[in-house]
Amino acid sequence: MNKTIEVCFTPKLFADITTKDDYIVVLADILRATTSICAAFQNGVKEIIPVANLDEAREIKSKGYLVASEQDGKKLDWADFGNSAFNFTPEAIGGKTLVYCTTNGTRALEIAKKARKIAMGAFVNISALSDWLVHENKNVVILCSGWKNKFCLEDSLFAGALAEKLLAHPGFVTFCDSTHASLDLWQIARYDLPGYLEKAAHRHRLRKLGLDDVIPYSFAPDTTRVIPVFEGGVIRERG
Amino acid sequence: MNKTIEVCFTPKLFADITTKDDYIVVLADILRATTSICAAFQNGVKEIIPVANLDEAREIKSKGYLVASEQDGKKLDWADFGNSAFNFTPEAIGGKTLVYCTTNGTRALEIAKKARKIAMGAFVNISALSDWLVHENKNVVILCSGWKNKFCLEDSLFAGALAEKLLAHPGFVTFCDSTHASLDLWQIARYDLPGYLEKAAHRHRLRKLGLDDVIPYSFAPDTTRVIPVFEGGVIRERG
Repeated sequence: MNKTIEVCFTPKLFADITTKDDYIVVLADILRATTSICAAFQNGVKEIIPVANLDEAREIKSKGYLVASEQDGKKLDWADFGNSAFNFTPEAIGGKTLVYCTTNGTRALEIAKKARKIAMGAFVNISALSDWLVHENKNVVILCSGWKNKFCLEDSLFAGALAEKLLAHPGFVTFCDSTHASLDLWQIARYDLPGYLEKAAHRHRLRKLGLDDVIPYSFAPDTTRVIPVFEGGVIRERG
Repeated sequence: MNKTIEVCFTPKLFADITTKDDYIVVLADILRATTSICAAFQNGVKEIIPVANLDEAREIKSKGYLVASEQDGKKLDWADFGNSAFNFTPEAIGGKTLVYCTTNGTRALEIAKKARKIAMGAFVNISALSDWLVHENKNVVILCSGWKNKFCLEDSLFAGALAEKLLAHPGFVTFCDSTHASLDLWQIARYDLPGYLEKAAHRHRLRKLGLDDVIPYSFAPDTTRVIPVFEGGVIRERG
């Protein structure tokens, strides 16, 4: 039986997905949570505990954990890191447990908890992720983090890129308008992602904050084979 | 000062729009509510009272009003009409008050009530609507009805087509990723809308119901100059 692909443009629409039965959610927050989480596992982090609000992150920090936290794209004073992928060097996080709180990504994780497995998707791990999803052979819901409940271009482009890879396998189909839109946007943008994203609102926010240094990294495909998976409250490398 | 364009892909995301101050909402439910409402005004309906639920529609019908009502795209037994544009002939509705209840469109109207003015947008009145919006010189939010809270292609394509017309005027700008996505999808689809929409989920639903006869009509631009506007609980031709 064919497996379906559905794209959900923002966490607010997740309650209305039509995919039934057993499915894997792929969470995408390209600029930045899921890209940064992939970088952290590539650099040897042991596990990541996502938390959905700042108070919780602060409390956990007081117990001695390393905390990465930002609000509206900016590192908070009391946190050990912001959420730039460049923060997560082997020296800083190798072998450690990291607590992670971001505006978009972690909130989306909370919302998607009802899925059995949530994989972290980004351009940096897109081929490894696609191979793994084909192997798992389950329905796939790609959940874009968006920005404050709004549609955003970079996550949707990733959704299109991943859907294209999956649909190259005869076992996958889609009946979802959001997936078709993502595929088409990806066709327009694929040969010059940074150029295309000049018009993206989030990119301009990052630039304003002086945080756009990670953009080339975030759009470079396949720099890692890690597949961080959220299961039972913790993100770990797929076992 | 420039006026902004924002596209909202489903009513569920309307609460999170970033457009502030005085704005006009353009409601789009191409297959079918807003196209049908334009057809009704073109054929001389006096006014249309949208209601958001079937019980209310039934109650009003018992008071002697003409009622158009469907659920999941199908006309209900007790209603006078479904919501196909072809139902609203001059003989049937000329000079009369019509009560209108549909799955998508009317619910979106309810949600958008907080805007001062809600204009009905469709391909059939797109140029007249664009001219009027330029004249009104206010921020514009294009609200796609979608289907059961999900993104749908046909409404988003209309959003792109209308945004393109508005942006041809120097007074309009956009900073909204949904608008950019709509514009790009429109560029792909514009020269063969029916062909492009072969992949649209809603089109397949209509075909299954034997209701796809209105599709060519729904995508033919500028067959009318009417601009139905919802204000104070009633839809009337712009005065």
